Amino acid sequence: MVFFYGITMKTILLAAGRSKRLNPLGDKNFLNFLGKPLLQWQLEQLYKGGFKDVVVVGGAHNLEEISALVKNVPNEVTVVEQDNLDEGMAGAVLAAKNMVAKKDPILIVSGNDVIESSAFEQIMAAHRVAEHGLLLAKEVDSYFPGGYLKTDADFFCKDIVEKPGKGNEPSNLVNIVVHYFGQSGDLFKTLESIDSENDDRYEAALAEMMRKGARIRAIPYEGFWKPIKYPWHVLDLMEHFLYSLSEYEIQNLENKGIEIADTATIKGGVYLEDGVKILDNAVVAGPAYIGRNTVIATNALVRNSHIGDNCVIGFGTEVARSYVGNCVWTHSNYIGDSIIGDNCSFGAGTVTGNLRLDEEAILVNVDGSKVSADRNKLGLIMGSGVRCGINTSFMPGVKIGRNAMVGAGIVVAGDVEEGKYVYGKTELVIKDNTAQLSPAVRAEMQKKLKNT
Amino acid sequence: MVFFYGITMKTILLAAGRSKRLNPLGDKNFLNFLGKPLLQWQLEQLYKGGFKDVVVVGGAHNLEEISALVKNVPNEVTVVEQDNLDEGMAGAVLAAKNMVAKKDPILIVSGNDVIESSAFEQIMAAHRVAEHGLLLAKEVDSYFPGGYLKTDADFFCKDIVEKPGKGNEPSNLVNIVVHYFGQSGDLFKTLESIDSENDDRYEAALAEMMRKGARIRAIPYEGFWKPIKYPWHVLDLMEHFLYSLSEYEIQNLENKGIEIADTATIKGGVYLEDGVKILDNAVVAGPAYIGRNTVIATNALVRNSHIGDNCVIGFGTEVARSYVGNCVWTHSNYIGDSIIGDNCSFGAGTVTGNLRLDEEAILVNVDGSKVSADRNKLGLIMGSGVRCGINTSFMPGVKIGRNAMVGAGIVVAGDVEEGKYVYGKTELVIKDNTAQLSPAVRAEMQKKLKNT
Amino acid sequence: MVFFYGITMKTILLAAGRSKRLNPLGDKNFLNFLGKPLLQWQLEQLYKGGFKDVVVVGGAHNLEEISALVKNVPNEVTVVEQDNLDEGMAGAVLAAKNMVAKKDPILIVSGNDVIESSAFEQIMAAHRVAEHGLLLAKEVDSYFPGGYLKTDADFFCKDIVEKPGKGNEPSNLVNIVVHYFGQSGDLFKTLESIDSENDDRYEAALAEMMRKGARIRAIPYEGFWKPIKYPWHVLDLMEHFLYSLSEYEIQNLENKGIEIADTATIKGGVYLEDGVKILDNAVVAGPAYIGRNTVIATNALVRNSHIGDNCVIGFGTEVARSYVGNCVWTHSNYIGDSIIGDNCSFGAGTVTGNLRLDEEAILVNVDGSKVSADRNKLGLIMGSGVRCGINTSFMPGVKIGRNAMVGAGIVVAGDVEEGKYVYGKTELVIKDNTAQLSPAVRAEMQKKLKNT
Repeated sequence: MVFFYGITMKTILLAAGRSKRLNPLGDKNFLNFLGKPLLQWQLEQLYKGGFKDVVVVGGAHNLEEISALVKNVPNEVTVVEQDNLDEGMAGAVLAAKNMVAKKDPILIVSGNDVIESSAFEQIMAAHRVAEHGLLLAKEVDSYFPGGYLKTDADFFCKDIVEKPGKGNEPSNLVNIVVHYFGQSGDLFKTLESIDSENDDRYEAALAEMMRKGARIRAIPYEGFWKPIKYPWHVLDLMEHFLYSLSEYEIQNLENKGIEIADTATIKGGVYLEDGVKILDNAVVAGPAYIGRNTVIATNALVRNSHIGDNCVIGFGTEVARSYVGNCVWTHSNYIGDSIIGDNCSFGAGTVTGNLRLDEEAILVNVDGSKVSADRNKLGLIMGSGVRCGINTSFMPGVKIGRNAMVGAGIVVAGDVEEGKYVYGKTELVIKDNTAQLSPAVRAEMQKKLKNT
Repeated sequence: MVFFYGITMKTILLAAGRSKRLNPLGDKNFLNFLGKPLLQWQLEQLYKGGFKDVVVVGGAHNLEEISALVKNVPNEVTVVEQDNLDEGMAGAVLAAKNMVAKKDPILIVSGNDVIESSAFEQIMAAHRVAEHGLLLAKEVDSYFPGGYLKTDADFFCKDIVEKPGKGNEPSNLVNIVVHYFGQSGDLFKTLESIDSENDDRYEAALAEMMRKGARIRAIPYEGFWKPIKYPWHVLDLMEHFLYSLSEYEIQNLENKGIEIADTATIKGGVYLEDGVKILDNAVVAGPAYIGRNTVIATNALVRNSHIGDNCVIGFGTEVARSYVGNCVWTHSNYIGDSIIGDNCSFGAGTVTGNLRLDEEAILVNVDGSKVSADRNKLGLIMGSGVRCGINTSFMPGVKIGRNAMVGAGIVVAGDVEEGKYVYGKTELVIKDNTAQLSPAVRAEMQKKLKNT
Repeated sequence: MVFFYGITMKTILLAAGRSKRLNPLGDKNFLNFLGKPLLQWQLEQLYKGGFKDVVVVGGAHNLEEISALVKNVPNEVTVVEQDNLDEGMAGAVLAAKNMVAKKDPILIVSGNDVIESSAFEQIMAAHRVAEHGLLLAKEVDSYFPGGYLKTDADFFCKDIVEKPGKGNEPSNLVNIVVHYFGQSGDLFKTLESIDSENDDRYEAALAEMMRKGARIRAIPYEGFWKPIKYPWHVLDLMEHFLYSLSEYEIQNLENKGIEIADTATIKGGVYLEDGVKILDNAVVAGPAYIGRNTVIATNALVRNSHIGDNCVIGFGTEVARSYVGNCVWTHSNYIGDSIIGDNCSFGAGTVTGNLRLDEEAILVNVDGSKVSADRNKLGLIMGSGVRCGINTSFMPGVKIGRNAMVGAGIVVAGDVEEGKYVYGKTELVIKDNTAQLSPAVRAEMQKKLKNT
């Protein structure tokens, strides 16, 4: 088969997932990194890899937002809706069927994975001598609960095994949904032949094609790969994006309206967007990204973090290894290893615990069961629109739902649901104050002070 | 009528009010701004305006303090006592009757209002061609619950209407008690003719004079005017005084014993009194006033605030938009939009909430009822002599009475009365510690640290 | 009597005490100051004073640790074990009996007292013309509950009176256990003649020798002397050691791997060990000692304190007048007038109260009874291996036992025993959040911010 580069190749980008396990962080497609939503990053990577013609499959919940976003990308984009989101990935691919000619090649890309542009370049290079299909395959060092490829010595796939369990892996190659098919009709036809009740219908179709002798080759990939499934994955992604900041990058300082106090310190790879203000004695230690018009106030420290637009990282706040959305106001807080949505605020003295006292891995409630985040440092996971009082303590791995309010001076050890208001009941004792303060004590303290 | 400038004109300055609604902040006359009590500012303004001969009317509660204060002013001052404070303003004026000749002109000035010197200059200028009387009249933009002047086209007053209600104002001119009368006897006689049970006896006398054809003219005034009635008015006054500080003013640095660390930052209009010490990395962002011998300690931030004498604004404290009395010790606190009396102290980590979670206007208890402070940022209102423990949280608009003690780690959501001791009851659970700390976790943390 | 200098003189250093009243701080012999355990300091002081041949008496609980330590000192050391620790000081001295020839002179030195080298030099000088014995005697200004020496005009001791009570002191000379005896046999024989049930058997032996006419002379001593008995004595000792740091001492900066940020401030007498890192805007105000590889992080302040090895004094922490062991991690804490063991950690926002609200002297539980620390500033006393959560408040003088865990957001007002886990029970109320946030409020706040 020979294709004319970029003419008829279509990409189906699957973006209809509801990101339930990411709750309360919202739709993964619109998580911003370095000023762009994830979906935009993916489209631009595709473009860079030569995949310029894209069908984005969305759902009713995000179609409008997707349509707005695709106006900002260089690709030729059509947005289609997957009507029944319960039909999963197979349903999503089939939702785009009418947009692709049967004989044309297609690339299927999942919005759930973040990879490097090089992956698309590998596929583009390989497809020129291509077979019926190509599957991007991550070489893993340790067990990952995904689909493993069973291949022959020439990397032709014989089967795909979902979550085989540790020790039963047929190879070290995990299927990443960057799938090329020489003729889209092959895939669509097989998909339609599989029982639509099958949860893994798409993977079953792949396996079926392999069994029937389709020459589908695995393309081993060594670059960055991160499926974004649980909230803490945002931190891994953030780290990935931050480490792409090579060094201290502030261009056109005057034009961009950036103001940095003489006494502020900026070091490491730091990207400051337009209008950023860094006040006295503030420290930004890279890698770090600071969004538009955000203020890093006096004596604040931001390190290894990603801060959105229009935030105020207030006096004496430390933000460490955290992802902070837009319009977040902090004030003398410690935000560590945390993910904070947009439009939140924290009263003075409120802090996130990010390490258990027993220093074990942090557990997080996901859909009713405890999931280990597999890291011993994890702080707060907060949805958008939350207001939080002063001197409150968030235990590691706690999730606060959107538009919740959290009162002052409490220990929040469990999750708070969306739209709830949680506060504490303190029993106070009131007595007469019978203490007789000796003026001598203050006088002595003043005297010592004088001699300092 | 013709007067000889400055010879026989007497001013009656009314300073007998008990400032109940200002509770727990004490007598408004002695609130210090920029190093001087309010009463002294008023006397000096009068002097500057040409009113050099003053009778100050006090009450039993403050007569002594007034007598001490008036020694420091350039005016010729007599202090008289109003015996029955329940007789209000009329009683206060009549208390001074014997000090003024019937034929002599007088100026009646209330200690409840803060205005600019220019107001007195306006009156002084106008009285030369004067009528029976002159009333200073503030032109207001929005409804103010005070006495409105009903005037003719030439600003001659026909009536005075107390709190007419929004929409029923007879003019946009609100009566400020800077009242000139060509012959004091006119006022005294009319006052004595009004039923002494009448709460608004003084205003009733004015209205009576107007009705009887006295030529009393309103003098429209466009300058600063702030009646000081509720605690939060102290913040408005503070702002007024602070904005009068034109720029960075430190004169005779060496003589005044001021010490400023090389790493400290001072910016904007800041007035430092003798003996002030600003330690390392501290920031004072004007407009700000720092009283004698006060220490702004390492990493502290003071902005838009007024700090008294002999304070220690301790390590890592932020004081923002707040009025702090003398001898106040703070330590890693946030004091925002607050008014703090003399001789108070705050344990480390104690903070003032200054914004409700619902971001509505703050309500304050005044004499048993909730009054809106008409501002969504308001912190703590604390009387003198209070000691407060560590990590305590004060809710917005809370009032702490004098000589109270406030325990550690509590949320103070209601007012605390004078002389009370309030503390929390925490129920603690004690178990065996069964955690097995893995040395690997610390080792890993140490390693990461090394690589920072 | 004539001795050949340094040939046969033996010192018995008593180090078998169990330091019970120091609980939870552990064995006083191994408290580190300026990088060396107290026992090592004593041995080196003895060496410097000419006492090069030492028998150290330990107990089963510390024999191994003593044996390891003595490898690092220049003295000739033998370690012996006191089998029955209940036999106190007399038992300890007798445990070393076999190591000393009867005719040889000995020096008895207690590990409970910290003194200056000059004391040993005084004894060494005096012994050349010596009598049967010499007792170091501190001249005290005020009553100390110790053993007072009754002497004649030539300082020959006639009796020793234990805790005579204020006003009954026979002199102003308090016995310090630096006791020289010309012939060790004299002491041993007398000791053995005293009833072994006698608690003050050693002192009784001294008194007995005096009564029997032994010429035992008091050597008045004016230098530093501090018996180390209660936890807060560690702070006194620390102060003593810190004030021996003459000035800013950093030698061989490059070789020692010390890193100091340009924006950091170091002032006063500060000793930095190898590998110390001082990050941005941190302030170390001497006298202070910082151990090996310790990090003083951004915006932290350490003043008048002694910090061990491998610590992280985290962002925004203040450590004031405190002794901190090795491997302690802090984070936005205030540690004031406190003693912290090794391998502890403090969550963000956790602070030590160090002054009672009534400003009275702090009381500490020692062996079941309250003992006044005789100082109004005293913070936390924490054993090794403690983990503490965020936003917790320690009341002044509280003791936390080793390997305890302390939960978040609580007020710890009583002691916590070794190996316990204490946490709080907060009752939270959860309601629907009915607040309607007005976007105008945020917009206004943003606008004000812009104009700053």
